[in-house]
Formats: sequence, C-alpha cells, structure tokens
Amino acid sequence: MYPESLKNLIESFKLLPGVGEKTAERMAFFLINEDKEKTDFFANSIINAKDKVRKCSVCNGITDKEVCDICSSDSRNHNVLCVVEDPKSVFLFEKVGTYGGDYHILDGLISPLDGVDPDDIGIEKLVKRVQSGNYSEIIIAVKPSIEGETTALYIKKILEGLKIKVTRIASGVPIGTDIEYIDSMTLERALTDRKEIE
Amino acid sequence: MYPESLKNLIESFKLLPGVGEKTAERMAFFLINEDKEKTDFFANSIINAKDKVRKCSVCNGITDKEVCDICSSDSRNHNVLCVVEDPKSVFLFEKVGTYGGDYHILDGLISPLDGVDPDDIGIEKLVKRVQSGNYSEIIIAVKPSIEGETTALYIKKILEGLKIKVTRIASGVPIGTDIEYIDSMTLERALTDRKEIE
Repeated sequence: MYPESLKNLIESFKLLPGVGEKTAERMAFFLINEDKEKTDFFANSIINAKDKVRKCSVCNGITDKEVCDICSSDSRNHNVLCVVEDPKSVFLFEKVGTYGGDYHILDGLISPLDGVDPDDIGIEKLVKRVQSGNYSEIIIAVKPSIEGETTALYIKKILEGLKIKVTRIASGVPIGTDIEYIDSMTLERALTDRKEIE
Repeated sequence: MYPESLKNLIESFKLLPGVGEKTAERMAFFLINEDKEKTDFFANSIINAKDKVRKCSVCNGITDKEVCDICSSDSRNHNVLCVVEDPKSVFLFEKVGTYGGDYHILDGLISPLDGVDPDDIGIEKLVKRVQSGNYSEIIIAVKPSIEGETTALYIKKILEGLKIKVTRIASGVPIGTDIEYIDSMTLERALTDRKEIE
C-alpha cells in the first residue's frame, strides 16, 4: 500500500524499542517532510555511530578511540575504580558529576540460573586490570538484585588477596519517594544500613 | 561526554516527534548494538525514502512514481473523488478498504485566522482536476473542525456550476464511545444528522 521506500523506512523505525506500527508511521511521515540536510544527517549519524563507536580496550566503555577519554585523562583519580554492568551506567554517573575516578564495564551480571558465569561477564579482565593498576578502592555500582549481589560478592572474594577496599553503592529508599511505595527488600536494606544522624 | 558519533545519533533521534533526551539515548544505544546489516538498512531507508518519495502529479499523494498506483489503477472507480487534507489520510481510508475511488490531497485546510487561503491549499488544482475528469461525486473527508467546515463549504461553492454531487463524511459519536465523553458540538451534530432506524 505504501510506496516501497516509505515501507522500508517504517520497518526501520519499527526496529527500535518501544516503537510500534503507528509510531513508526508517524516518524516516517515526519522525516520525509524534513529537509534533505536533516535526513542526510540522520542517515550519516547511524552509519558513523555503527562504524566508529567501539569498546575502550581498557575499561570496555563506549568510545570512538582505542582508549576512552576517561581512561586516558590526566585529570582524573586513577586510584578509584567504579565497576558497572553496562556502558550506559558510565554516562549516568558522569552526569551526576561528583565521581572523578575510573570505570570498568562488565558484560552484564553473574546469573547462575541463566547460565551466566563470571567468565561470561569478563571478570578476568577486571581482575587483571586491578592487579596491574594502582587502586586503593573498588566501588561496585551494579543493580541491587540477586544477580547484582552475586556479582558484587564474587568480585569481593576474587580480589581478597589484593588488600584493596571493595565497596558497594548504598541501597535504600530513593530520595523523595513515599515509604509506602517501597518493596520490603529495599526497606529491610534501608533499615540494616541505617546511618547515625550527625 | 558521549563520543561525537554517538552524540550525533542521539541528536538525530531527538529530531523525531515525541522523542526526548532519554528515549533518544535508549534508541541510540539500542541501534549501535544491532548488526551492521540492520543499521545499514536503517540508514539506507532514510536516504531512499527522502530520495524517492514524491508527490503524485495528479492527486498530490505520496508515491515513488510520477503518477501514484491509485491514480493509474485500472481497477478503481475513477468517477468518485475523495478529498482529504493530508497524504496520510489516504492510507487510513485504504486500510478500511471499502472505498475504491480516487483521492485528492489538499495541502491543509483553509484557515482565515492563520492566513491560509484557498490558494495556499491547492484548491485550483482540485478544481481543474474535477473539471477535466468524469466525476459524479466528490466526497469531502477532512477533519470536522471550523477549518474543515470552511474548506468543505468553499469546495462545495466553487464546484457549484459543475452539477456534481458534493458530500461530506458523517460526523457523530465514534462507535464504542460513551456519550458522556463526547463534546457538545459533536453531540449537536449527531442529533442533527440522526438517521431513521430501518
């Protein structure tokens, strides 16, 4: 019914997460009415991003260089290492802006039930990096879930011999959230990890 | 913060209607993890659609030919002409599937308040087409709004001399909708246009 080229554009948009038939149609109709300059920019952005974006050889982070800007920075604290579960977490922490150390990106979390072993998420590379680095603290910043806990405990254990402080980011009630909406596991954690008011 | 190429991809997605920063980031991260085959298809679809999709020289509809499939079809009824306000309406009516006549796509609706005159929406081209055609009925299928009414009445008036039946699609309560949610203008129309139950 649609011309072939428009049909393909609609199919392309349908590849995206959360985009169904109607939204894809709306996006396609919108885009073909934009200037050629903009549609070219869009198409080239896709080609360029796919072509240039790669994993940093040191931290596995997203970069368009061999070693990412964070790993190669002169102005960051290379004595702290924050371990995250996906490349996007890095940008989230960087948006916060208060952390100035290194990152290491795992390839997911250990999940025995799904058959995901430590080898599958690249723990080996993390251990080598920590051994050859000069770190005084490893901050584990993965999702607080069973898989997250398992991964955190595994990393703590495997780094035991190195006498490096291994910490976890805090879990608890998110700021501004009513207690009544919080699940009991989180509340339990919030209770256990309570802090003295100073 | 993001590598340049990823930043451009996020900016590209932000061009789309209803896509903000967060959604654009999610789409960009998703896309760079897809196979090169898919990202190439996406980029080429944009280039192709922009390059090939054009206005049908007869009806102004969206096509990748000089004259669209509907206008050049042998199996359609070229004695009825359905006038719509944008190219997308054609596909909506075609999805319904019961109409088998011609279409003519206006470039919007007459809106004196916004300075949109009959000339601006291509009424001239419509009139010429009707004059040189063999139409027994013109169905006006534009939005039931002040602009829609104005446009419908204008077309009715300008075609007056041609002795062609000019009709409007029905307005009223959408099927399956509670009366309580219907605005009073629509209810008034539904009352006025009531039909005897046979």
